[in-house]
Amino acid sequence: MLLQEIPKKDDILSAEKRIHNYVHRTPVFTSNQLNEILGVHVYFKCENLQKVGAFKMRGASNAILSLTKAQLKKGVATHSSGNHAQAVALTAKLAKIPAYIVMPHNAPEVKVEAVRRYGAEVIYCESNLNAREEMLNEVVEKTGASFIHPYDNYDVIAGQATCAKEMLEDTDHLKALFAPIGGGGLMAGTLLSSQYFGNKTPVIGAEPAGADDAYRSWKAGKIIPMEHPDTIADGLRTSVGERNFPIIQQYVKDIITVSDEEIIEAMRLIFNYLKLVVEPSGAVPFASMIKIKDQFKGKKVGVILCGGNIDLKKLPF
Amino acid sequence: MLLQEIPKKDDILSAEKRIHNYVHRTPVFTSNQLNEILGVHVYFKCENLQKVGAFKMRGASNAILSLTKAQLKKGVATHSSGNHAQAVALTAKLAKIPAYIVMPHNAPEVKVEAVRRYGAEVIYCESNLNAREEMLNEVVEKTGASFIHPYDNYDVIAGQATCAKEMLEDTDHLKALFAPIGGGGLMAGTLLSSQYFGNKTPVIGAEPAGADDAYRSWKAGKIIPMEHPDTIADGLRTSVGERNFPIIQQYVKDIITVSDEEIIEAMRLIFNYLKLVVEPSGAVPFASMIKIKDQFKGKKVGVILCGGNIDLKKLPF
Repeated sequence: MLLQEIPKKDDILSAEKRIHNYVHRTPVFTSNQLNEILGVHVYFKCENLQKVGAFKMRGASNAILSLTKAQLKKGVATHSSGNHAQAVALTAKLAKIPAYIVMPHNAPEVKVEAVRRYGAEVIYCESNLNAREEMLNEVVEKTGASFIHPYDNYDVIAGQATCAKEMLEDTDHLKALFAPIGGGGLMAGTLLSSQYFGNKTPVIGAEPAGADDAYRSWKAGKIIPMEHPDTIADGLRTSVGERNFPIIQQYVKDIITVSDEEIIEAMRLIFNYLKLVVEPSGAVPFASMIKIKDQFKGKKVGVILCGGNIDLKKLPF
Repeated sequence: MLLQEIPKKDDILSAEKRIHNYVHRTPVFTSNQLNEILGVHVYFKCENLQKVGAFKMRGASNAILSLTKAQLKKGVATHSSGNHAQAVALTAKLAKIPAYIVMPHNAPEVKVEAVRRYGAEVIYCESNLNAREEMLNEVVEKTGASFIHPYDNYDVIAGQATCAKEMLEDTDHLKALFAPIGGGGLMAGTLLSSQYFGNKTPVIGAEPAGADDAYRSWKAGKIIPMEHPDTIADGLRTSVGERNFPIIQQYVKDIITVSDEEIIEAMRLIFNYLKLVVEPSGAVPFASMIKIKDQFKGKKVGVILCGGNIDLKKLPF
């Protein structure tokens, strides 16, 4: 039964059970050296080590496994520039159902390859939202597949919420939790888990300055879509979704925007001190934390490293 | 009391207790995608996630903590191009004793910085073994510090042995264990742990073709030093040590050499599928495994990712 309203505590607990065999409980890492340099104790939730290399596996698997048997039989479809596509493809492979993925022709090579390796059918389209949606509608009409939206979907939000739930269980006394805002799936889930399972730990949104629609929407009190996003953080170029925005509006403590230079510097620190590969989007929450680190001197904070799928030819250093 | 002969089972158990608070028990990771591509179940012991980013912390801390109080007071000294230097420096910092590190002037920037950050004194020298040894002797004479050899030292070997011990405890039914050979500290320790704690699991040595002295020495039955090493794997340019070679000769199953291209391809796979940063030397055992993977079709093998300290400016992709 698909969720029709904002996930409740029980919906997230159900999601956690539902996806148990489809996701890893990812580790939380810290680096003494990095903590000394920053003057803050930073705990990193390593969703770059998640299946498909990103948190997206949580939401996609929860949404797909919530479908009826009849729906599952006809398969699933989505449009995505990357990690959500891989997550839908892998879930479909594990659940033994067909998957149809509409991808822009300029999607990173490593992401297209991964989707194909999971056995999904890739359908290319132009790199704009209209083209994607038209192609997706065609596919859904032809196959009867269920559309799994990357973020504007309550079941996806409930799945993404399991990430912060685990992190809050595996840490103590966090003064804040930093998560990225693209479409707002992970952010909405993080906010709900902080309310339900984390003693309302303050959650801070992180956005690239070149795709700061959530920040501007939050300030304006209504959704202002991003028309021409321009940032290295390709996973966060999307505008915030209709189901996601009200949750963000209600619970987010602050939204911090960062430049591409700040994102690259955060990536560099993560590579050098944690020895972890993160994609630019995956480093945005840490970049935001660094920007306001004086607020957390000597304290503990949580940072979600949301993904690690980067084309090595495009490393910024 | 310093070890005067090949470490026994009890010496490795003592080392494990001695260094318990100085090292991490590093995780063992595997990647389903990578296993499917290779047709082998590969378990990676992540020593790139060890303190100082390399297994060297195990041997250095064991050797230092085996010194007498009087010796500790005068401090420790070593010559090293990198990871061993950091390990000596960090152990000295934690044990609150002085450390003097002789380093070649062309050592990677990231490694020199790290040693300084641990509070050790860096003394530069020319980039050849004679120059290093001369400078080291000067330092030892002047300060009374104890020289901690990077590999040709039984206490170092006993410390490095704890790595394979942990790996053998955390895995089952490995058909082989791949470890690198530079000076032979990790390799000798791995061979001993396989004998004492791992049902004599076959251990395979991995060497860059451009620094294949251990391979040639093993074939010849006597040490043949490397005169002009030429490989991207800077941590493995050293020639095998006198205390290390007899252990290798007695127990190693095979030694596989790999080209720089094969090392870089192994690094690429580790970055892409494990989302882990490894230095070239750290990828050599995996490159060797790939070279003979047909021997292990459908089986489990262990691979030590021995270090992750790479200058991001020098990434080979």
